[in-house]
Amino acid sequence: MLNYVHDIPTRLYFGQGQISHLAEELGRFGKNVLLAYGGGSVKRTGLYDEVMKILSDGGFKVTELSGIEPNPRITSVARGVQLCKENDIDVILAVGGGSTIDCCKAVSAGVFYEGDDLWKMVLTSKKAGKHLPLVDILTISATGSEFDAGAVITNWETNEKMSGIFGHPAVSICDPSYTFSVPKYQTAAGSADIMSHVFENYFSETPDSDLADGISESILKSVMKNCPIALEEPDNYSARANLMADANVACSGIPLYGKKYTGWPCHAMEHELSAYYDITHGVDLAILTPRWMRFILKKDPKTVSRFVKLGRNVFGLDCDDELALANAAIDAVEAYFKSTGIPMSLSELGIGEEHFADMAGHADVGGRLTNAYVPLSPADVEEIYRACL
Amino acid sequence: MLNYVHDIPTRLYFGQGQISHLAEELGRFGKNVLLAYGGGSVKRTGLYDEVMKILSDGGFKVTELSGIEPNPRITSVARGVQLCKENDIDVILAVGGGSTIDCCKAVSAGVFYEGDDLWKMVLTSKKAGKHLPLVDILTISATGSEFDAGAVITNWETNEKMSGIFGHPAVSICDPSYTFSVPKYQTAAGSADIMSHVFENYFSETPDSDLADGISESILKSVMKNCPIALEEPDNYSARANLMADANVACSGIPLYGKKYTGWPCHAMEHELSAYYDITHGVDLAILTPRWMRFILKKDPKTVSRFVKLGRNVFGLDCDDELALANAAIDAVEAYFKSTGIPMSLSELGIGEEHFADMAGHADVGGRLTNAYVPLSPADVEEIYRACL
Repeated sequence: MLNYVHDIPTRLYFGQGQISHLAEELGRFGKNVLLAYGGGSVKRTGLYDEVMKILSDGGFKVTELSGIEPNPRITSVARGVQLCKENDIDVILAVGGGSTIDCCKAVSAGVFYEGDDLWKMVLTSKKAGKHLPLVDILTISATGSEFDAGAVITNWETNEKMSGIFGHPAVSICDPSYTFSVPKYQTAAGSADIMSHVFENYFSETPDSDLADGISESILKSVMKNCPIALEEPDNYSARANLMADANVACSGIPLYGKKYTGWPCHAMEHELSAYYDITHGVDLAILTPRWMRFILKKDPKTVSRFVKLGRNVFGLDCDDELALANAAIDAVEAYFKSTGIPMSLSELGIGEEHFADMAGHADVGGRLTNAYVPLSPADVEEIYRACL
Repeated sequence: MLNYVHDIPTRLYFGQGQISHLAEELGRFGKNVLLAYGGGSVKRTGLYDEVMKILSDGGFKVTELSGIEPNPRITSVARGVQLCKENDIDVILAVGGGSTIDCCKAVSAGVFYEGDDLWKMVLTSKKAGKHLPLVDILTISATGSEFDAGAVITNWETNEKMSGIFGHPAVSICDPSYTFSVPKYQTAAGSADIMSHVFENYFSETPDSDLADGISESILKSVMKNCPIALEEPDNYSARANLMADANVACSGIPLYGKKYTGWPCHAMEHELSAYYDITHGVDLAILTPRWMRFILKKDPKTVSRFVKLGRNVFGLDCDDELALANAAIDAVEAYFKSTGIPMSLSELGIGEEHFADMAGHADVGGRLTNAYVPLSPADVEEIYRACL
């Protein structure tokens, strides 16, 4: 086991009706609130009205930042920073999914950024610094942004999608009933995102971090049990709650404790795809993951034991031939993703090979691929992209 | 799944050499340090000297509170509070196991307690209030006090051992190599304590909290894998590290997330035992647990499914007859405890039945037994104690 630091200061209220804590928690930080959200879904579901009533009853002064995109853009971050400065904002309230929360994390740090180019802040942010307090109300189980310090921001001018570390939310309100209205496609894609966060840590050099591996396996089993239920019965509270708890933990860093950081290669490859095409993060990850698994299994025999562990502990498979067992585990991952009804090839998304070489050339940001569990060259990445067609 | 709040503000440094963060972390709070520890073990191992050098090099002013007992007493809490007040202490540094940390938690709150009877503070403390910052260096994997807000304090005048909530440590330094010197008996007892924390939550009304159950099962498997290794090879870093990570999480509340609180009946019964006899907490728990399991399995058929789950997921057992499988799971728990070499009966500890009626009469503190997963009457408790003879 390697050294690690657990440092998650977020107070997370989980469950039905936890919005009752909103006014008190916001009030700890002040009265001037930036209310941030994405498109119209929070208005359609009535959550916007519920929040506005709480804010109005509590005597909060509200400034709105709306229209945050699914892959949040640096231009939205800039708008948010300007609104915070102009309105002397005390606390940001993000109502939405990972994109809205990510955007708000960058805004919260951007307010204190002294340079004049916020994109530079994203590119150079490796550690949380000073930032406005952020409270969020989560509306989809997926990215885990409600319980981690990172954010992913897209710059369409440069075709870049980059991660930065800006700080944990102070408070996250995770009410699974707010996800009843999430459509099937987004439910399946969000679940694939949760699983990808686990896979990215699970395939690591360090084999002896039992609890981290056990938590990872528990999340995978829980998602594959509960996502199909949520797809059939969108308002099944238990299924939605399990998915939300899984999402909270999957990206928190906890499943990596004691293990060597792996570079998160599927995310690195996915960020290239969605920097070129405005597509759904979780779907790309579901498409990439089994292809990446087959590639690393073929390329490096050290991976066999990890796939065998996955097969045994998560899928209950057994077989004397370890390589056959490893392949069966990958088949099971792919079959699960297929069963959720999302597209499982890039061509279904209308993506061809025209940018593969460029994307493969850019994907190794910060050495994430050259230092990965199984290092990947640009040629390797191109091969994986082609396998996704 | 039920509602819950995750709120663990402790910054936990895990791994070899993490003491390098000590001076910086203490310095956040001030220069006047109360250094608290138990008996001579921290002096024998050299940890005391290492800490004193860091404090001296960092220009800290040190006041010492030594001789904290294995079941820490309210008299030690009172000594600590007095030292803090007399010396204008900024931060408490606890070096030791759960007993030392528990004592320091009560001291940290006691400094701000306005009444004149600290025992009343323990009895009435149900929520963390104002308290001095506490930094700890953990030396045994067991109670999980390094990552929770509670403490257990004993009053020998009244034969009471009671839990209070005083607040999380601000910082915990968890270096598994500090546990190399923990003797076999204490290693096994500490591991039984970790497992008991899990069992106390696992047997709950709420069956659908998948992640909490998965984490619980992972901890149980990890402890039963790594404790025997640590018993054979006391300086096996990987085994010690896994046990420490297991201990951190087991008592953190996380394995209870989404589940109904169960009253922690084995702890309630154990607190009575160790309020009358100055014995090792983890050993009592190992003795009580299988007897309690057999009792509740016999008393209430609803428990069968939980024991079946335990048998299947933790011990890899299978059998068409669910009751037989449930009993086999309990046999496996008992056999594991026996294999670690600790006494598995009260008579081996020289304890007879003379106080059983009194203890059974007192054990239901705060309704912990009447509101338990399977409610226990004083007669039930006496029957369980007798089965432990």
